[in-house]
Amino acid sequence: MPKSFRRMARKVGMPPGSLIYTGEKGHLPAKITITRYNSENIVERQLDAFTECQMAGDPEEVTWINVNGISQVHNLEKVGECFKIHPLVLEDILEVGQRPKVEDYDDYLYIVLNSIRSAAEGEKFVSEEISLVLGPHYVLSFYEGDGDLFAPVRDRLLKAKGRIRKMGADYLAYCLIDLIVDHYFVELEKFGDQMESLEDEVMTHPSPQTLGDVHRIKNDMIMLRKSLWPLREVIARLERRESPLISENLDNYFRDVYDHTIIAIDTVETYRDILSGMLDIYLSSMSNRLNEIMKVLTIIATIFMPLTFITSLYGMNFKHMPELQWRYGYYVVIGVVVMIALSMLSFFRRKRWI
Amino acid sequence: MPKSFRRMARKVGMPPGSLIYTGEKGHLPAKITITRYNSENIVERQLDAFTECQMAGDPEEVTWINVNGISQVHNLEKVGECFKIHPLVLEDILEVGQRPKVEDYDDYLYIVLNSIRSAAEGEKFVSEEISLVLGPHYVLSFYEGDGDLFAPVRDRLLKAKGRIRKMGADYLAYCLIDLIVDHYFVELEKFGDQMESLEDEVMTHPSPQTLGDVHRIKNDMIMLRKSLWPLREVIARLERRESPLISENLDNYFRDVYDHTIIAIDTVETYRDILSGMLDIYLSSMSNRLNEIMKVLTIIATIFMPLTFITSLYGMNFKHMPELQWRYGYYVVIGVVVMIALSMLSFFRRKRWI
Amino acid sequence: MPKSFRRMARKVGMPPGSLIYTGEKGHLPAKITITRYNSENIVERQLDAFTECQMAGDPEEVTWINVNGISQVHNLEKVGECFKIHPLVLEDILEVGQRPKVEDYDDYLYIVLNSIRSAAEGEKFVSEEISLVLGPHYVLSFYEGDGDLFAPVRDRLLKAKGRIRKMGADYLAYCLIDLIVDHYFVELEKFGDQMESLEDEVMTHPSPQTLGDVHRIKNDMIMLRKSLWPLREVIARLERRESPLISENLDNYFRDVYDHTIIAIDTVETYRDILSGMLDIYLSSMSNRLNEIMKVLTIIATIFMPLTFITSLYGMNFKHMPELQWRYGYYVVIGVVVMIALSMLSFFRRKRWI
Amino acid sequence: MPKSFRRMARKVGMPPGSLIYTGEKGHLPAKITITRYNSENIVERQLDAFTECQMAGDPEEVTWINVNGISQVHNLEKVGECFKIHPLVLEDILEVGQRPKVEDYDDYLYIVLNSIRSAAEGEKFVSEEISLVLGPHYVLSFYEGDGDLFAPVRDRLLKAKGRIRKMGADYLAYCLIDLIVDHYFVELEKFGDQMESLEDEVMTHPSPQTLGDVHRIKNDMIMLRKSLWPLREVIARLERRESPLISENLDNYFRDVYDHTIIAIDTVETYRDILSGMLDIYLSSMSNRLNEIMKVLTIIATIFMPLTFITSLYGMNFKHMPELQWRYGYYVVIGVVVMIALSMLSFFRRKRWI
Amino acid sequence: MPKSFRRMARKVGMPPGSLIYTGEKGHLPAKITITRYNSENIVERQLDAFTECQMAGDPEEVTWINVNGISQVHNLEKVGECFKIHPLVLEDILEVGQRPKVEDYDDYLYIVLNSIRSAAEGEKFVSEEISLVLGPHYVLSFYEGDGDLFAPVRDRLLKAKGRIRKMGADYLAYCLIDLIVDHYFVELEKFGDQMESLEDEVMTHPSPQTLGDVHRIKNDMIMLRKSLWPLREVIARLERRESPLISENLDNYFRDVYDHTIIAIDTVETYRDILSGMLDIYLSSMSNRLNEIMKVLTIIATIFMPLTFITSLYGMNFKHMPELQWRYGYYVVIGVVVMIALSMLSFFRRKRWI
Repeated sequence: MPKSFRRMARKVGMPPGSLIYTGEKGHLPAKITITRYNSENIVERQLDAFTECQMAGDPEEVTWINVNGISQVHNLEKVGECFKIHPLVLEDILEVGQRPKVEDYDDYLYIVLNSIRSAAEGEKFVSEEISLVLGPHYVLSFYEGDGDLFAPVRDRLLKAKGRIRKMGADYLAYCLIDLIVDHYFVELEKFGDQMESLEDEVMTHPSPQTLGDVHRIKNDMIMLRKSLWPLREVIARLERRESPLISENLDNYFRDVYDHTIIAIDTVETYRDILSGMLDIYLSSMSNRLNEIMKVLTIIATIFMPLTFITSLYGMNFKHMPELQWRYGYYVVIGVVVMIALSMLSFFRRKRWI
Repeated sequence: MPKSFRRMARKVGMPPGSLIYTGEKGHLPAKITITRYNSENIVERQLDAFTECQMAGDPEEVTWINVNGISQVHNLEKVGECFKIHPLVLEDILEVGQRPKVEDYDDYLYIVLNSIRSAAEGEKFVSEEISLVLGPHYVLSFYEGDGDLFAPVRDRLLKAKGRIRKMGADYLAYCLIDLIVDHYFVELEKFGDQMESLEDEVMTHPSPQTLGDVHRIKNDMIMLRKSLWPLREVIARLERRESPLISENLDNYFRDVYDHTIIAIDTVETYRDILSGMLDIYLSSMSNRLNEIMKVLTIIATIFMPLTFITSLYGMNFKHMPELQWRYGYYVVIGVVVMIALSMLSFFRRKRWI
Repeated sequence: MPKSFRRMARKVGMPPGSLIYTGEKGHLPAKITITRYNSENIVERQLDAFTECQMAGDPEEVTWINVNGISQVHNLEKVGECFKIHPLVLEDILEVGQRPKVEDYDDYLYIVLNSIRSAAEGEKFVSEEISLVLGPHYVLSFYEGDGDLFAPVRDRLLKAKGRIRKMGADYLAYCLIDLIVDHYFVELEKFGDQMESLEDEVMTHPSPQTLGDVHRIKNDMIMLRKSLWPLREVIARLERRESPLISENLDNYFRDVYDHTIIAIDTVETYRDILSGMLDIYLSSMSNRLNEIMKVLTIIATIFMPLTFITSLYGMNFKHMPELQWRYGYYVVIGVVVMIALSMLSFFRRKRWI
Repeated sequence: MPKSFRRMARKVGMPPGSLIYTGEKGHLPAKITITRYNSENIVERQLDAFTECQMAGDPEEVTWINVNGISQVHNLEKVGECFKIHPLVLEDILEVGQRPKVEDYDDYLYIVLNSIRSAAEGEKFVSEEISLVLGPHYVLSFYEGDGDLFAPVRDRLLKAKGRIRKMGADYLAYCLIDLIVDHYFVELEKFGDQMESLEDEVMTHPSPQTLGDVHRIKNDMIMLRKSLWPLREVIARLERRESPLISENLDNYFRDVYDHTIIAIDTVETYRDILSGMLDIYLSSMSNRLNEIMKVLTIIATIFMPLTFITSLYGMNFKHMPELQWRYGYYVVIGVVVMIALSMLSFFRRKRWI
Repeated sequence: MPKSFRRMARKVGMPPGSLIYTGEKGHLPAKITITRYNSENIVERQLDAFTECQMAGDPEEVTWINVNGISQVHNLEKVGECFKIHPLVLEDILEVGQRPKVEDYDDYLYIVLNSIRSAAEGEKFVSEEISLVLGPHYVLSFYEGDGDLFAPVRDRLLKAKGRIRKMGADYLAYCLIDLIVDHYFVELEKFGDQMESLEDEVMTHPSPQTLGDVHRIKNDMIMLRKSLWPLREVIARLERRESPLISENLDNYFRDVYDHTIIAIDTVETYRDILSGMLDIYLSSMSNRLNEIMKVLTIIATIFMPLTFITSLYGMNFKHMPELQWRYGYYVVIGVVVMIALSMLSFFRRKRWI
C-alpha cells in the first residue's frame, strides 16, 4: 500500500513553498558529505549540519553534496540559499511521495527518482525517494533514508576508477542515476527467483499460502510499474538533452540507462502477465481438485448407498418375508451386492473417473 | 451511481442558454462573499443576494466573489450582466453533472472542476461541481453545496500568509484549484486505510460483507477516475498557459498541481489494480474453502458409508447367516471396521487431505 | 444483435449508387414537412409526396425539409435532383446500418446520426438512423421511422422561442443534432435506474433473472458505445468548423454538444465498468451460496453418519454381542451419540461454519 | 488455426525473389481470363496458359487479366515479364499467408487482400488471398482458389450496368475491392444469425455443445479481425490517393468502401464483446445449476439422515430399551419423524431454497 | 522465466564500458570465421582467435567476420580496436539480456537481435542474442551460442546463389536479419501444431496436463512477444533508411522483412487470444464435469436415502408395529420403494439431468 503518498494529505490548504518534512524518518540525524574533485585531486568532508556556503573555487572542480536524512529542515534551507534553489524545489525535496520527474530551472535541473532496496530484515522491498539537483559544476543529492546508497560511486571517485574523475558534474549525475536503475535489477532478480519457485508450487501443490505470495508479488509489481514508468520518462528527457547542462558526449551513456529502464519495464510487464497466468492456473487447479474430491465422494456414495439399501431391506422385521427363509437367501444377497459394486466400478471406469 | 448526470435529461429540447437550475439543493439559500484585496488592504463582505455591480475601482485590486448555493438564478443573472459572462457559461454553471473543462472566452477563462468531500455522516464521498471564472482582476467561484469549501484560502488571504496577497487573480485561482486537488488526497488516504484493512480481511476471513466493500470501493474508484482524468486535462491546459490571463511566473505552481493530479490518477489506477487482485483472491479463497468443506464431507462419508454397510449387512434377518453364530463374529466385524477406517485415513493422509 | 447491419449484405455485387431501400419499414407512408422561415415569417406545409422543386426565393429564408419514412424512393430522387445531391449520398440515406459520419461535398454537408428512443411497449431502446443535409440556406432531414422526432425544434420555430428564428440553417442543424444527443441522456437515465435496482438485487438476492438483466444491459451498452464513438467524432469535426457552411458564432454551441457526447460516452464506459463489477459480484455470490449449502450438507452428514453407524452396529444380529446384554448399554449408546454430536458441533463452531 | 501462415516456414534461408508456390492447391489447373473493354466494345478470352504478351493497343482501353489458380509458376513469370512486375511482387503473389497491404511501385500498385467465403459443405468460412496489380490501363488479379469470385463485376462489365464501362482501370480495381469487402458482410450476417440462436441457448439450456460453438465463433472472430484491420489500412491508403494511378473522382467511392470496412470491424468487435459476455453467462449458469443440484442433494440428505438415524436407533438390539415396549412408541417415532421433516422443510423455505 | 536478464544485476555499480561477459556459456571456445568476397572471388578462413587486423584491401570487397562464442573477451577487444568500435558497444555485445535495438554510430550501425531456436533435446525454444555491426564494407556478427546459425547465408555466398555476391555489406546484413526473422516462423509453426492438438484435448478430455501445456505455451508467447515487438521497431528503422549505410535499392527487401515481423507479431497475438480462450474453455469444462459428477451423486442419494429410511423404519424393534404383522406388508413396502424410485427418476428426467 503506498503509505508514503498519504502524507501529502497532511498539507491540505497550506501555502505553496512551506518547508515541512512529511516523512516518517524524522528521528534520523542528518549526515552531509561534501566531495570536491577534479582529475587530479579529491577532497571529502563529513558534516552533521550544513553551515557555511563556500562553493565557488575552481570552476574546473566538481562539487558533490550528499545529504542523508532530510528531516533537519534548516540544512536544506541553507543549501537552498547557497545554491539559489527555488522554494518549490526545496518543498518537493521534503515532500515524500513524489513521482519521478525532471524539471528544468535553467540554472539547474531538478531530478526526482525512486530507488528500491531490499529491506534488511524481510523480503519486501522499500522504495526511497532520491532528489538530485544538477548544476553546472555541482550535484546535490538528497535522500530520506539511512545507509550509504551511493557508496559504489564514491568508491569509484576515490579510486579514480573509469573516467569518472575526468568528466563533469553531468557524468557524476549519470553515474548516480545508473546506480539507482541498476538496483531495480537486483530486486527484479529476487522476484524472478521467487516466481520460479512459485510457478512450481502452483503446478504441483498449490496452497492458500501460494495464493498469498502470488498476490503479494503482484501488488509489488504494480508498485514497481508505478515507479518505473515515470522513471523512464525522466531518463528519456535527459537522453534528449533538452538542457545545456548535459553535454553531448553523454548521449550514449544516457541511451544505455534508458535501454535498462526499458528492459526493467518489459520485465515487470512480463512478470505481471506470468502472475496473472499463475492465478488462472491456481483457480483451475482448485477446480481440478474439487472434481477429484467429488469423484471420490460420488464413487463411494454410489456404491454403498444401494448396497446399504439392500441390506437394510432384509433387516426389516416383517413377519412375512419369504426370502428370509430361503436356504441361500443370504448368499444371494452377498452375490447381488458384489455384482452391484462391480458394475458400478466398471461404470466409473468407463466414465474415466477411476 | 452518477445521480447528478441524470438531471441533464430534464432539459431535452430546450433552447440553449436557458437558465434553469438542475440540481437537488434548491432549498439552500444563496450566500455570497465578496473579497477585495491588494497587498495592503483586504475587505470582505457577506451578502444574501447580489444586487449592485460596482467592480471597477483600483485595477491593482483583486476581487473575489464566491457564490454558495446557486439555485437563486437571479443572483447568477446579475453577476453575469455585471461581468459580461456568456449565457452558455451561466447555463453551464447551473447545470449539474458537468465534466471538468476549461473554456477560453478571451476576456475570461471559464473553469469547471469537481471537488470531493467526505459526507459528514457516512464514509461515502460526495462530488461537488465548482465553477470558476477567472478574469483579469477578478475570480468568480460558484458552487452548489453548503459549507465554506474555500475557508483555508480565505484564511491565508486574511492573515496574509505566504505570497497570496502580493499576487494577482490568477494566483488566487491557482490557490483555489490547488485546494480542490488536495481534497482528493484526503479522500484517497481514507480509501487507502479502508483497503488496507480489507486486504487483511480478504486473506484471513473473507465474508460477503468484504465482497460488498470491495465492490463499493471499486465503484468509487470508477467515479474518481471519471472525474480525475478531465481534471488533469484542465490543469494541463492551464499549465501550458494558453491564455494571457495566466502570468508566466505561475508556471511552476501549475506544474506542481499537475504533478499532484498525476499522482492522484496513478493512485486511483493502482487502487483499481489492487482491488481487482482482491476480487481474484476472494474467489480463490472461496474455492479453497469449498475444497476444505468438501474434503471434510468426503472423508466422513468415505469412512462411514462402508462401515455402515457392513453393520447393516449383519443386521439382516436371514435365517441362515452362519457368521451370526460364530463365537467371535462380532469382534471380527469390529476389527474389520477399525481396519477399514484406518486404511481410509491413511489413504487420505497420502492424498494430503488431512 | 445489430439487425440493421445485416441488410448491407443484400447489396453484394450491385453497382454503387443504386437507390434501393434496405430497411424494414417499407410499409410506412412518406410524410414530408416543408418549413420555411426567417425572423419575421414562418410557413409550414405537409405533403405526402415531393413533387415540385421551388426552393429559390429569398436567400434570407431558411428552408427545412423533413422526410419521414424513406421507403418511397421516388421522393428521395426528386429531392436529390432539386438540391443536386450526389447519388452516393442518396444511396447512403436509403441504406440502413450506416455509421454516424460527416462528409463534406463543398456545396453541402452530409451528416449521418443515430437517434435512440425507447420503444413504446417495452424497455429496450430502438436505434434510428437520421440523415441530415446542411446546405447554405436549407436543411434536409430524413429518417426511416414514424413519429415526429423533431417536434420540440418545430415547436420552438413556430413559437419563435430562443434565437432559432434569427439564425441560419447551420443553427437549425445544430438544434436538430442537440436534440438527438439529448435523447441519449433520456435513455441513459433509464438505464441508470435499472442498474441501481439491479445492483441491490445482485447484492441481496441474485437470481438467474438478475444475470439475464445484467447481460442484456451490457449488450445495450455495447450497442450504445458503438454508436456514440463515431457520433463524438462527427460533432468534433463540426466543432472544428472545417466547412464554411458552419458560421463562427456556432463555435460555443457545438462545443456544448461535444461536451454532452463526451459525458454520454463517459457514462456508458462507467456503466460498463459497473456492470462488469456486478458480474464478478454475481459469480462471487454464487460461490458464497454454494459454500453455505455445502456447509449445511457437511454438518448434517458429519454429525449423522457416525451416529447412524453406531446405532447400526448395535442393530447387528450376532449371537454374541455382550454389550447388548448390559443393563445400561442403551443409555451408554445414547450418551455416546450425544457426545459425538456435541463435539462435532463444537468442531464446526471452531471452524466458524456455524 | 492459421494454417496458411505456416507455409512461410518452408522457405527459411532461401534467397529473396525465389518463385515457389507455397499453397495447398497445386493440383488446380490455371484459368486465365483476359477482358478488354472501353465504353463501346468489350472482348473476353479464356486461356489455359498465358503465352503471348500483346497488351499495347488503344490506351483508352482497359485490360483486365484474371488468373485463377496460381500454382503454374510459368504463367506468373510470363505475366511478370510482360507487365514488368518486380520479382518480389511475383514472389509475394505466390506466397500464401500474406497480410493485406498496398505497395507503390510507381508504375503500378500492388494490393494484397483477403477474401472470405463460406465453404460449400460446412459453415466455417474460408479465407483466400487475392493479389491485385493496378497499372495505368490494366488490372491484374490473381487468386489461389477455384470458382469465379469476380462474376458479379464481370457481369456488370458485359451488361454495361452502371458506369463501370465508362471509367478507367482504377474504377475496375475499386469494383473488385468493393466486392471483396461486401463478402465480409455476407459472412458476418451468418455469424449474426448463429450468435442469436447461441444467445438463446446460453440463457435457456446451455450445454457443452453451446460452449464449443461460442469458442469456435470466437476464434473465427479473432481470424476475421486479424484480416480486417490491415484491410482497413489498405483502403485508407487508397482513399488518401497517395498514388496518381487513382483518379480524383474515385474519392467518394473509396470513402464508401472505407466506411464499410469500419462497419465490419465495429461489428467484429461488437461480436467479440457479446461472445465474451456469453462465456461469462455460461459460467454463471453452470454455477447456478450446480447450486440447484447441491440444494436438492442437501435438502434430501438433511431430511433423511436424521430420520434414518432415529429409525436405526430403535433398530438396535439392546435388551433394555424401555421405549420399545411402549404401547405407542412406534407412533411417537412416526410423529417425531414427521415433525423433523416438516421443520427441515420450513427451514429450507425460510432460506428460500425451495 | 527470463534467466538471461538476471545477469544484468551482477554489474551493479561498475563503471560503464567494463568488458565483462555476463552469460553462462563461458566454457565454449571462440570460433571466428572471416569471409571476404566480391562478385568474382570469395575467401573464407576459420580462426580460433582474432590476432591481426588487416581489413583494408579492395573497397569493392565485402568482409564478414562472424564470432561464435563471445566469452573470450580479448578477441572482442581486438576486433573493437581494429574496427574502432565504441566501448559501450563492446560492452553491450558481451552483456546478455539485451533488447533488440539499432544504434547509429555514424561510421557503423550497431544492431542487436534475438534469434530463437528449438533446443535440440526438448520442445522449449531457446532465445539467443545476436549482435551485428554494419559498416560501409564489412559486417561483424557476434553470438554467444554454438552451432552455425548463419549456415544458409554462407552457403548462398559460397555457391553464389541469388544476387548476394553482387551486392554490398548492407545486403549481407539484410540476409542475416531475414534469416533470423524466418526462424521465428519455424518455431511458430511448431507452436501452431501443439496448439491444434491442445485445442482438441481441451474440448474432448481436458486434464491437468493440458492445463500445464496451455500455461507453458502462454508463457512462451509472452516471451516471444517481448522479443518481437522491439525487433519490429528495429526493422522499421532500418526500412526507413535513416542511415546512409543502407542503400536505396534495399528498400523493398527491408519492407518484406518488416511485413514478416508484422505477420509473426499478429500470429503471436492471435495465439495468445486463442490460448486465453482455451483457458476459459478449460474452466468451463471443469465446471461442466463437476455438474455431471454432482448430478450422479445427487440422483443416487435422492433415490436411496428415502428408500433406506423406509426400510430402516421397518427394521425398528418396537413391540407394537401393526404393519409388521400384515400379510402383505413386505410387498407393500417393496411397492412403495419402487414407486418412490420411479417418481424420483421421472423427476430427474423432467429436470433433464438424465
